[in-house]
Amino acid sequence: MPRKIILDVDPGHDDAIAILLAANSPEIDLLGITTVAGNQILEKTTLNAQRICSAAGINAPIAKGMDRPIVRQQIIADDIHGNSGLDGPAFSKPTVDVIPQHAVNFIIETIIKSDGDITLVPTGPLTNIAMALLLEPKIRDKIQEIIFMGGAYGIGNTTPGAEFNIFADPEAAKIVLNSGLPLTMVGLDLTHQATATPDVIERIKSIGTPLANIVVELLEFFGQTYFEVFGFPAPPVHDPCTVAKLIDPDVFTTRHLYVDVDIKSELNYGRTVCDFYGVMGRQPNCHVAIDLNKERFWNLIIEAIKRY
Amino acid sequence: MPRKIILDVDPGHDDAIAILLAANSPEIDLLGITTVAGNQILEKTTLNAQRICSAAGINAPIAKGMDRPIVRQQIIADDIHGNSGLDGPAFSKPTVDVIPQHAVNFIIETIIKSDGDITLVPTGPLTNIAMALLLEPKIRDKIQEIIFMGGAYGIGNTTPGAEFNIFADPEAAKIVLNSGLPLTMVGLDLTHQATATPDVIERIKSIGTPLANIVVELLEFFGQTYFEVFGFPAPPVHDPCTVAKLIDPDVFTTRHLYVDVDIKSELNYGRTVCDFYGVMGRQPNCHVAIDLNKERFWNLIIEAIKRY
Amino acid sequence: MPRKIILDVDPGHDDAIAILLAANSPEIDLLGITTVAGNQILEKTTLNAQRICSAAGINAPIAKGMDRPIVRQQIIADDIHGNSGLDGPAFSKPTVDVIPQHAVNFIIETIIKSDGDITLVPTGPLTNIAMALLLEPKIRDKIQEIIFMGGAYGIGNTTPGAEFNIFADPEAAKIVLNSGLPLTMVGLDLTHQATATPDVIERIKSIGTPLANIVVELLEFFGQTYFEVFGFPAPPVHDPCTVAKLIDPDVFTTRHLYVDVDIKSELNYGRTVCDFYGVMGRQPNCHVAIDLNKERFWNLIIEAIKRY
Amino acid sequence: MPRKIILDVDPGHDDAIAILLAANSPEIDLLGITTVAGNQILEKTTLNAQRICSAAGINAPIAKGMDRPIVRQQIIADDIHGNSGLDGPAFSKPTVDVIPQHAVNFIIETIIKSDGDITLVPTGPLTNIAMALLLEPKIRDKIQEIIFMGGAYGIGNTTPGAEFNIFADPEAAKIVLNSGLPLTMVGLDLTHQATATPDVIERIKSIGTPLANIVVELLEFFGQTYFEVFGFPAPPVHDPCTVAKLIDPDVFTTRHLYVDVDIKSELNYGRTVCDFYGVMGRQPNCHVAIDLNKERFWNLIIEAIKRY
Repeated sequence: MPRKIILDVDPGHDDAIAILLAANSPEIDLLGITTVAGNQILEKTTLNAQRICSAAGINAPIAKGMDRPIVRQQIIADDIHGNSGLDGPAFSKPTVDVIPQHAVNFIIETIIKSDGDITLVPTGPLTNIAMALLLEPKIRDKIQEIIFMGGAYGIGNTTPGAEFNIFADPEAAKIVLNSGLPLTMVGLDLTHQATATPDVIERIKSIGTPLANIVVELLEFFGQTYFEVFGFPAPPVHDPCTVAKLIDPDVFTTRHLYVDVDIKSELNYGRTVCDFYGVMGRQPNCHVAIDLNKERFWNLIIEAIKRY
Repeated sequence: MPRKIILDVDPGHDDAIAILLAANSPEIDLLGITTVAGNQILEKTTLNAQRICSAAGINAPIAKGMDRPIVRQQIIADDIHGNSGLDGPAFSKPTVDVIPQHAVNFIIETIIKSDGDITLVPTGPLTNIAMALLLEPKIRDKIQEIIFMGGAYGIGNTTPGAEFNIFADPEAAKIVLNSGLPLTMVGLDLTHQATATPDVIERIKSIGTPLANIVVELLEFFGQTYFEVFGFPAPPVHDPCTVAKLIDPDVFTTRHLYVDVDIKSELNYGRTVCDFYGVMGRQPNCHVAIDLNKERFWNLIIEAIKRY
Repeated sequence: MPRKIILDVDPGHDDAIAILLAANSPEIDLLGITTVAGNQILEKTTLNAQRICSAAGINAPIAKGMDRPIVRQQIIADDIHGNSGLDGPAFSKPTVDVIPQHAVNFIIETIIKSDGDITLVPTGPLTNIAMALLLEPKIRDKIQEIIFMGGAYGIGNTTPGAEFNIFADPEAAKIVLNSGLPLTMVGLDLTHQATATPDVIERIKSIGTPLANIVVELLEFFGQTYFEVFGFPAPPVHDPCTVAKLIDPDVFTTRHLYVDVDIKSELNYGRTVCDFYGVMGRQPNCHVAIDLNKERFWNLIIEAIKRY
Repeated sequence: MPRKIILDVDPGHDDAIAILLAANSPEIDLLGITTVAGNQILEKTTLNAQRICSAAGINAPIAKGMDRPIVRQQIIADDIHGNSGLDGPAFSKPTVDVIPQHAVNFIIETIIKSDGDITLVPTGPLTNIAMALLLEPKIRDKIQEIIFMGGAYGIGNTTPGAEFNIFADPEAAKIVLNSGLPLTMVGLDLTHQATATPDVIERIKSIGTPLANIVVELLEFFGQTYFEVFGFPAPPVHDPCTVAKLIDPDVFTTRHLYVDVDIKSELNYGRTVCDFYGVMGRQPNCHVAIDLNKERFWNLIIEAIKRY
């Protein structure tokens, strides 16, 4: 039985690849795509979701969500994802539309109607997820699991302490981490192992389909900005690691830890605090991703792209 | 033309009197009552709204709202309002029902359908208001004004720095204060002037109606807990000060100041920082209540009770 | 028996008057004057202490102390006290010198040699006092009392939350408030009652001595800046309230409260949190000044000036 | 020319080895040992410095310093270092005494008298160093360098964010990091590479001298507690990494980064924030230790022990 998921995204280059992986893997039943402000403003991330779905022929419903974080001032990551949020390839006018329902209500209603077998897969700021949990507490009993891209136990990428998705809405992350739900955090510590090295790009290029070419262009733009901003030789393809874990549980290892988010500090605002040594005396609440099997990960991505 | 308002409450003894004032003053058009967790849990504050409306024959729609604050752990004020949240009088089973719509959606839809002439009057934690502003940013252009009971520029009542309504959901208050909307803050500095002294209670008692008797019983319970917890000789009837201002603009004076909420501090969590001397160099964003005309205030309350 | 005190100052217009009061009141035995950076940089506050002592013929030892706060970046109050820190009168070159010993060591040695009967009277940032407590913990058992000007339970004067002396070194204030010593806090709530109104200035002017004229010039400059910065009709003469309390215990009332300093918040950094309602469940650690007897206060000041 | 250093310690098992390395390496001129509260209370850490010096025949002056951190409540690390702070070997009554001067004054006077060629090597909380910098700002121009053990850019050991030495006095660390002096931070990221693995212990054991036996007993106790508390297979010998760097600059690599300490957060109190990607836009102020050459490090230690 494929895993039923709602993919909550802010595309975003790596979000785009997460969509491609989720929409075309037999192990995944993609119930819908919800968009959130993050890598770019909501209008742009939503348009980008439409673009990718149009280009790939994906017809999962797309619902537009929160246009700003819950408490903090909005930030975006245009230094990494460009002015459109998905710079690189040329996209034609999208042929798929957005449903009229707000993403938060889509999430709530889809879960309420379900048999408790839906997994939420947020790869942007956790705003939509947190809002749904707040607005309809009853869904807490019906969410199977949340696996999110975000956070770091090592060095952050937006501040020395914080990773972008969590820094973009730390209070939303706090709400999710305090929810009592089964959680998996796929942070930079893991995703920085998922770099699109030249051999990976070569393998995708050799697929030769129009979609593969789009992916190559995405990765080339992403690689360029990652080199300029962070000096990385190859870009880390963060977001699809979440979906990959649902397809293949062995794609990375985890440790079950107590994780909290710092929403009080100025210097460490948005830092995910992961209690590796158990010094805080709290019950573990989150499976934290540790070691990636790069071979398995890239095979999943490449096989999915081939299927389009 | 009467002022159209939505009254957002967590009854609560003084909330109950705010409802009575709002529902029966010709200057006010009460479009609905929304409930929020605050003085007690949501189930109880909602039941109490039904009780007061049933006892007074008020038939404004009642919508049930947020059952917890946005980020922080929930607190209640049962030391002041008792186990029911409205201890004192004996209430019969309510005869008015709650509408099925969530308070946040009721607020959003009522405002969207309006001509931009609705004033929000929250007298509990600002959770419902903040959630509505987040979920539907379009309402920002259609809210006439928000006048809320909460905060203090002097000493707080729940901590030395913070007043209960703001302390119960500081992040919601931050969202409202940052909204850019016309705001009036009716804090403890004002409401501690609105004490139900023996002469006031005597005047209400002498009305002699069943509803007046309920009000007397509410004030007597409230007076007892306020004496026990704070040593006050007479209880401050906070919440109706908001409604009174809409009926009679001269009921209290205000100053236009920059107001912010401390959501970072441990010691001053939930403190409303009011920049009286302009030392922060920020534009004023809130009219802060300063001096009450007690005579006018109590006349309004007593005349409203008489009309039932 | 006169009270033995060390006066720790950052003159400063009102510090200057505190020196005059302390040095020439039979109830006070002024063992020394220690200087600290505060209203101006240390070089200037020390020079000003020498100036006032020279002008008034005071020969208590003057020791130069800390040139910066313990943790925070230094601030000064030149908007109030001018470029010299004591703008207004023309002072001749001081005739009294500074002793070679560091103020912190002077405080430590004077207390260690004492019979435990010395009161510390800081009227600037608490840096010297905190440093002495840290460097020689043994003095904790030999300090009779600390009575300091600083803090506020109402509105601050440097930020909406904080008074200047505490804001200028909040960590020092924390150290003093946590010291376990008998403490009296003379905050803005009290000192804003000690305004040098025109009748007060007239009384001082009528004394007719050169020193009285200096005091008048000090108060006129101080009144001017207080009007410009805060819009006050008359300047509050903060610092001598401390000395006045040691001369005449009835000069103001106090309440014994738990007081803490916020050193974590951005918005309320340096705020003195005074637990009036006992909601924090902590033992009182500080007598907080409440109501001033203005008549008695100004009589003390004026009589002292006359004695020069 | 040997490097002149003052070693500031809280022995502590690894401090003891740092003393042994510093006192008997031709590249180092050990001007004095100053003690500070840290791994244990000051009485114990001072006694332990005397014990090690007595056992090894070291006669550098020992000065006793600060008995508590500057602002925070005191913590100790008896879970790691035992009740004595140096559990394991049996020590005889020390034969070397403590000088009467306070460590802070010893540091100040030694530096003031110097030619600006002294390096401070703190391996405990930075309290003594910070106090000296505060009390005598003139020493800022005469300190050659400060190389301290403390902090982490990865995971902390006392909280998930913070390393013990910094957590034990974060405000002192802030003072040192803001001092503008040449700084090297030897954090857990480096020192967790300096583990006393069985082969290392075997090499020391084979030296066969009484002092070597003491070191073995220290490492065995330390290994035991590190295994129990952190599950480490071998104990990291943190403190001598500082001294080793002064003897052999190639013993570890560094990166020049902006480093700050979080003194505001509850969750990340005492975390050293190291800006690897330059996202904070601040000038680098600290050389941060990255990669240890284990071979060179242990050779230095073992050669020093052999020389006793």
